[in-house]
Amino acid sequence: MKYYVGIDLGGTNIAAGVVDETGKIICKYSRKTNIHQPFEDLVRDIAETGKEVVRQAGMTMEDITSVGMGSPSCINPKNNLLVFANNLGWSNVPLPAVLQSHFDVPVYVRNDADCAALGEVIAGAARNYENAIMITLGTGVGGGVILNRRIFSGCDHMGGELGHTKLIYHGVRCTCGQYGCLESYTSATALIRETKEAMAEHPESLLHQLVDGDLSRVEAKTVFDAAHQNDETALAVVDQYIDYLAAGLSSFVSIFRPDVLIIGGGISWQGDYLLDPLNEKLKGYIFSYREIGGPKAIRAELGNDAGIIGAAMLELSEEE
Amino acid sequence: MKYYVGIDLGGTNIAAGVVDETGKIICKYSRKTNIHQPFEDLVRDIAETGKEVVRQAGMTMEDITSVGMGSPSCINPKNNLLVFANNLGWSNVPLPAVLQSHFDVPVYVRNDADCAALGEVIAGAARNYENAIMITLGTGVGGGVILNRRIFSGCDHMGGELGHTKLIYHGVRCTCGQYGCLESYTSATALIRETKEAMAEHPESLLHQLVDGDLSRVEAKTVFDAAHQNDETALAVVDQYIDYLAAGLSSFVSIFRPDVLIIGGGISWQGDYLLDPLNEKLKGYIFSYREIGGPKAIRAELGNDAGIIGAAMLELSEEE
Repeated sequence: MKYYVGIDLGGTNIAAGVVDETGKIICKYSRKTNIHQPFEDLVRDIAETGKEVVRQAGMTMEDITSVGMGSPSCINPKNNLLVFANNLGWSNVPLPAVLQSHFDVPVYVRNDADCAALGEVIAGAARNYENAIMITLGTGVGGGVILNRRIFSGCDHMGGELGHTKLIYHGVRCTCGQYGCLESYTSATALIRETKEAMAEHPESLLHQLVDGDLSRVEAKTVFDAAHQNDETALAVVDQYIDYLAAGLSSFVSIFRPDVLIIGGGISWQGDYLLDPLNEKLKGYIFSYREIGGPKAIRAELGNDAGIIGAAMLELSEEE
Repeated sequence: MKYYVGIDLGGTNIAAGVVDETGKIICKYSRKTNIHQPFEDLVRDIAETGKEVVRQAGMTMEDITSVGMGSPSCINPKNNLLVFANNLGWSNVPLPAVLQSHFDVPVYVRNDADCAALGEVIAGAARNYENAIMITLGTGVGGGVILNRRIFSGCDHMGGELGHTKLIYHGVRCTCGQYGCLESYTSATALIRETKEAMAEHPESLLHQLVDGDLSRVEAKTVFDAAHQNDETALAVVDQYIDYLAAGLSSFVSIFRPDVLIIGGGISWQGDYLLDPLNEKLKGYIFSYREIGGPKAIRAELGNDAGIIGAAMLELSEEE
């Protein structure tokens, strides 16, 4: 049996795992991400986290085939620099090279949303499928495309930015500076905005009671809580949100025709309450659904482990 | 030197060529598409067109390595049936199998927009690039994605329908039955609609004179003709049209990061008058353009020959 280290670098935690060749996590370990230290020190922290989980698994680095990391950015293959990672304050840093300098085994660094998608296909919700698109509905919208059980991220690994495709031409401003991106309508941040806008128009809504009249307490979950109690305003916001999501996903189906769509991130915890209407709406939005059908949306299974498993499996995904 | 037959099946003509392994057309021949005859007879016509061009090239079928055809539809790989081709009145016909029965060499059938894109990459405007997206702006909007000089059409060859990705959520109705597809804003048909709408609002526009007040005479070219004469209404329609196109293309850049964008179809004959403002607008629309740049849009070079050349080269594109 071969073993791999997978590391998921987030703005809050560095999570690492030893993963066997079947995609099973043998041991996990994490520490806080100290984003206030210099780049080299943070990379040393990352490397130490990887080495520590190997020790905790009762192994040495000699037992490890390769190290993979998912990072909230992408690597420019032309110069091997990490392009930019807003929440880490990095841009154009030689992350792969510096991380590699801490290890004698090969090190692979890819986008974290790609890693999560790979993890779900190898060992999670999409383990019975070859081709999947995963959308992570969190603060932003992450997208991962898996074709033939490998990460597809376009030419030079710089594509696959599904969250920044257009949903509404000249729509609301996105964090990326553009307007009308899928992310700006379907992220948790967007759902909170949509909820607050509806609350402003509907003072009678239960939503106001759920947050004791304090708009700053509105979370993505709030509108689902009110919808479960049949609050009309909340039901309308949820319906509109799912409609945005279905319309956006339908474009990816036109382009990729994956076997399945995986929905991850905090909002996916709504489960069938989200997925049932989403799948109903997808039938209406997917190009030529009547003639050739289309993929179903399913819920991600692995939570944060998906990123660790996918990162660990990067070497297998890279091999031709 | 190896030789291939490429056939481009259109609603008006069946065009065929003998193409050498470098992508050069040795001989061309075409006949009218008789869409009123039974399916088997039309396929026989297609096969005869392919055999005739071989004769006209002074060759026999023994000199031919394979036959490829581009068809205005896609083939469902699960049952090997052509899904549907509106302008031929076909749906779910065994086109590949029946066409193969006329030849002793391997026969390949793929979507015509994919073939055109492949042709431009092998021997046309994108011959110096590995990865390209081609958009054909005609009656509809065809899309072809070429990665590593091979056709990419998603899982099972059923994807790559770029014209039916969403540009405007809940926008105008598209021929596909959906709303707000890229095609419904950027096809020649859409441009004619946009021109007529602007004319209705601007009775003073030169556009009315150019068609002698007869709206049925508005073509895609009309608005460009008026814009060249600095008609304000026409300039605004052209600017809006190019803006739609830039926004739509930017989504494909987010997903694929191709080396180049190829613009084909009748509207591409506007040349730099279209491409210069398009490239300017792309800089504003492409995700992370400032950080990592983005591809330029260039004009297709091969016209109708692109489909013949790409079809002829299908065998080379299929090989792993």
